[in-house]
Amino acid sequence: MEADPDKWFHDRISKDLIQLHSIKEVLYKGQTKFQSIEIIRTGSYGKCLVLDNKIQSSELDEFIYHEALVHPALISHPNPENVFIAGGGEGATLREVYRHNTVEKVTMVDIDEEVISICKEYLPEYHQDSFKDERTELYHTDARQYLADSKEAFDIIIIDLTEPIEEGPAYLLYTEEFYRIAQEKLAENGIMSVQAGCATFNELLNFSAVFNTLKTAFTEVHPYQVDIPSFGGSWGFCFASNNVKPVMSTEEIDSRLQERGVTELRLYDGITHQNLFALPKHLRKVLESQTKLITDDQPLYTYSG
Amino acid sequence: MEADPDKWFHDRISKDLIQLHSIKEVLYKGQTKFQSIEIIRTGSYGKCLVLDNKIQSSELDEFIYHEALVHPALISHPNPENVFIAGGGEGATLREVYRHNTVEKVTMVDIDEEVISICKEYLPEYHQDSFKDERTELYHTDARQYLADSKEAFDIIIIDLTEPIEEGPAYLLYTEEFYRIAQEKLAENGIMSVQAGCATFNELLNFSAVFNTLKTAFTEVHPYQVDIPSFGGSWGFCFASNNVKPVMSTEEIDSRLQERGVTELRLYDGITHQNLFALPKHLRKVLESQTKLITDDQPLYTYSG
Amino acid sequence: MEADPDKWFHDRISKDLIQLHSIKEVLYKGQTKFQSIEIIRTGSYGKCLVLDNKIQSSELDEFIYHEALVHPALISHPNPENVFIAGGGEGATLREVYRHNTVEKVTMVDIDEEVISICKEYLPEYHQDSFKDERTELYHTDARQYLADSKEAFDIIIIDLTEPIEEGPAYLLYTEEFYRIAQEKLAENGIMSVQAGCATFNELLNFSAVFNTLKTAFTEVHPYQVDIPSFGGSWGFCFASNNVKPVMSTEEIDSRLQERGVTELRLYDGITHQNLFALPKHLRKVLESQTKLITDDQPLYTYSG
Amino acid sequence: MEADPDKWFHDRISKDLIQLHSIKEVLYKGQTKFQSIEIIRTGSYGKCLVLDNKIQSSELDEFIYHEALVHPALISHPNPENVFIAGGGEGATLREVYRHNTVEKVTMVDIDEEVISICKEYLPEYHQDSFKDERTELYHTDARQYLADSKEAFDIIIIDLTEPIEEGPAYLLYTEEFYRIAQEKLAENGIMSVQAGCATFNELLNFSAVFNTLKTAFTEVHPYQVDIPSFGGSWGFCFASNNVKPVMSTEEIDSRLQERGVTELRLYDGITHQNLFALPKHLRKVLESQTKLITDDQPLYTYSG
Repeated sequence: MEADPDKWFHDRISKDLIQLHSIKEVLYKGQTKFQSIEIIRTGSYGKCLVLDNKIQSSELDEFIYHEALVHPALISHPNPENVFIAGGGEGATLREVYRHNTVEKVTMVDIDEEVISICKEYLPEYHQDSFKDERTELYHTDARQYLADSKEAFDIIIIDLTEPIEEGPAYLLYTEEFYRIAQEKLAENGIMSVQAGCATFNELLNFSAVFNTLKTAFTEVHPYQVDIPSFGGSWGFCFASNNVKPVMSTEEIDSRLQERGVTELRLYDGITHQNLFALPKHLRKVLESQTKLITDDQPLYTYSG
Repeated sequence: MEADPDKWFHDRISKDLIQLHSIKEVLYKGQTKFQSIEIIRTGSYGKCLVLDNKIQSSELDEFIYHEALVHPALISHPNPENVFIAGGGEGATLREVYRHNTVEKVTMVDIDEEVISICKEYLPEYHQDSFKDERTELYHTDARQYLADSKEAFDIIIIDLTEPIEEGPAYLLYTEEFYRIAQEKLAENGIMSVQAGCATFNELLNFSAVFNTLKTAFTEVHPYQVDIPSFGGSWGFCFASNNVKPVMSTEEIDSRLQERGVTELRLYDGITHQNLFALPKHLRKVLESQTKLITDDQPLYTYSG
Repeated sequence: MEADPDKWFHDRISKDLIQLHSIKEVLYKGQTKFQSIEIIRTGSYGKCLVLDNKIQSSELDEFIYHEALVHPALISHPNPENVFIAGGGEGATLREVYRHNTVEKVTMVDIDEEVISICKEYLPEYHQDSFKDERTELYHTDARQYLADSKEAFDIIIIDLTEPIEEGPAYLLYTEEFYRIAQEKLAENGIMSVQAGCATFNELLNFSAVFNTLKTAFTEVHPYQVDIPSFGGSWGFCFASNNVKPVMSTEEIDSRLQERGVTELRLYDGITHQNLFALPKHLRKVLESQTKLITDDQPLYTYSG
Repeated sequence: MEADPDKWFHDRISKDLIQLHSIKEVLYKGQTKFQSIEIIRTGSYGKCLVLDNKIQSSELDEFIYHEALVHPALISHPNPENVFIAGGGEGATLREVYRHNTVEKVTMVDIDEEVISICKEYLPEYHQDSFKDERTELYHTDARQYLADSKEAFDIIIIDLTEPIEEGPAYLLYTEEFYRIAQEKLAENGIMSVQAGCATFNELLNFSAVFNTLKTAFTEVHPYQVDIPSFGGSWGFCFASNNVKPVMSTEEIDSRLQERGVTELRLYDGITHQNLFALPKHLRKVLESQTKLITDDQPLYTYSG
């Protein structure tokens, strides 16, 4: 008889909902200057990166998160060469960006050097040596300040950060003020992609606040979502641009992926693109009805238990 | 200070994953001839119907399940008049069917009379008196036998049953043999809609087995999915027919809904339809690679803990 | 195969320790003027009374708690006739008192009338109709005020209350000031018995504070303990008097129980008495080393999560 | 704000009762030839040794278990010189034995060399270098066979093993047949001490079976118990001998401890001894009423989930 698992990670989704993942092994546990960090191996989703007690990504389904964050923006741009990533410590966002053979340079700014070095060691399947790519420039500083000071124009900006809780390290990269900075740093046809948190229809405050706040700075803002099992359900993203829409036919997308040599995707293709942006009616309705904005002065309070 | 909830429903999703829902109230708890039944009020999703320890539907998001089960089939049919429902004890499937003003008669066969009577009493928001509609014929007998003996031809057949675990009451309504019976009872342009279980990519065995088994009896079989938070993620359905495909433009769907007086939907419309059937690539791939069939002799074993 | 239980009561013993009891049935759930109240049937300990999310007593082992609270005091008194009970809503303390045929009158003061009426209905095995005994005088008012105003002298005073958390209804019945009132209301050879909370050696703050506070008002204060499984371990009580010690031989106790017609006890007899008062060394040591007192101005803060 | 712990050890006490200990750190996790082994640091009880998913001892209260197992037997013997320990892998039983300056030799037989070597490394507070004492002879073989083949006569035999589950490594050291072997190896005035499992009154099967089985081989068998919080409550032991009873006055015990230089105990002294052996009435009654014996042919089945 096989015994039940005896060690469990309690992931508190909300006050009334908790997910328990069996723990097979704790590979690393520590505290960086900015957050607590753990690498645990779960029975449900393999190795997981846990920051401040929340699962950030899992070995089994990180491909869903990272492909969904990266490819809609890159494929919608005619020729993405110069890319900026805020956050992205696991290196998997970098990995996805490099699948497009048009990319000439990636500037990645993640304030937490220790997270990166722990991910490098414990999660090699995530970054797959993309940190070593000569086109990568990696900085450990405040991404907002870096971007504000930068003289470059980027084709793509990707925001791959933890949620905008006031106490967390990322909150000031989700505000109106920051989005105006980002908007100015986009080149012509530039696109920004932002992870926007839980997209379950009764927990949509974060997603809608990011969506609404982006609209104060960008002309085109398009929300989309995908199911990420290890996050406990549907997850939201936003596509933002001054002029580009994420509207392409299934065939156009598939043929552009082919041209750029993007052949090994597991989530994303033309059909998936149509799925991502066709938000079910109830999500559209809640997104429209909520109007909260995030500013430097008014953070979005979310559960931080 | 508000205390933490103290009573929790432990929903065992798999050996390595458990979801805990806070329990506000247990409204009913009993045992029918076929299964255990409970009505509990959770903090996360309101009132839930629980059969054999599994959440069957929740007050907060049952609309997602029932709209997704009913409307793709009915909207794809030019004039659905005669509808058959196997299962559907909560009455919410019936409620959704009657939104289409073309419907003239619904035959509903649910073997478990007690479940229906408990749902009538405790879940009035679900059925909304659709049991009282004069067009309803309700039988408490074996739905497979009823259909086999029936002389009618149905425009729509809806399979709204618990999962095909051998020990459960519903297993023989998921087999090749049953699907051949059902296929013969469809009128011209007839469509069958089947709930097909969990659609998380690493727990797809049930969905793929239903999909593959349907293909042995029907020419057109189209899988689709939607996120149902109270079920713990993405959920699968199949659309099956001898000649009809679920392919309509967004505008066609919206205008047909209008014509038929279907105006109060929360999940379903033209855009949602495109979302449902555009399965993400990783789901398509797993569905194609799994080949298990369900027959009267070879049930599908799934977790029954 | 028997399924695992699916509903659990989470009893938070401390920040780092939680006990889960399977829930078979929730018999009652409500809110009185003073506290939340539930009657649940657990798989581990049968019916449990739960006040403010903490298990107060269980059907299976309430006899341990109530016999330990009542009999050491009554047996140590040569002729207990007039008894006062503060709290004791379940009626089981009353039941135990009446086992001694010397008792002529019991005054019971419990502020929460609703708790008593719910216990009467749902826990008849606890009170066994002792509320109907003609010798019972029952009042629903503040026990401290009642005692302060009383002109009587009591042979026995029993304090059967929830823990002295500031927010709770019972805190002012655990203070120096209250104990001085109680001490004055004892007749010659009078004895007070007090439930004193958890007696696990690393969670002894409540027990030691009650013990130390009692010593400010009484000459003789004797701590004792017994294992109460449904409370998660060892539980503490104090015996207090102006002149009586709880020191009797095993034979004396057994013969006095016999004389008074106390023949149906399950926990208590002469040997058990020796066990209760012979505290293991580590408990004695912690009790001696902690010096916190409870006064009207300085409540004892304990975990109230 | 301090976050709730996120990793928990689920200790399944019974089908209807689970204890959750917060996990601070997993220090070691492995599989020996005989059992699974983990060293975890819990928030509730510090470092814990876990064998086959059950907590064997915790840093915070192992002193209770080990003092209770060792000292009643040694103090009741007029001059314990030659000691045999079966099991005892943590080294703490050895540590307690050496507190008595009469001891000249200890033969310890634990089949699982890996457990000992892991305990040596991770639990130095337990053994405190007692493995290095010159008087220690340590063997890694079957303790039953070793004892059967031994030509020595022992003053003290201590059985410090996991519970007698058939699948476990220890079952054949709890049977009638083994106890007859052990009885023959005792010197004059020899005493055997046995850990006997849970002593909660409604889970007493293991304790009573050990007690009854010992009575088939020894003239004097005396059960005793103590509360061990990390085990979830009261724990049972048996004292067995051909002629010695564990009956000494409080003063005799304290003075004998003094003579032998046993000055640093935390649990045990004369008063504690009286507590241990004065079993509460309900435990006495259940022990008397249960009659199950353990033989080589008829193991005691207990929960092994």
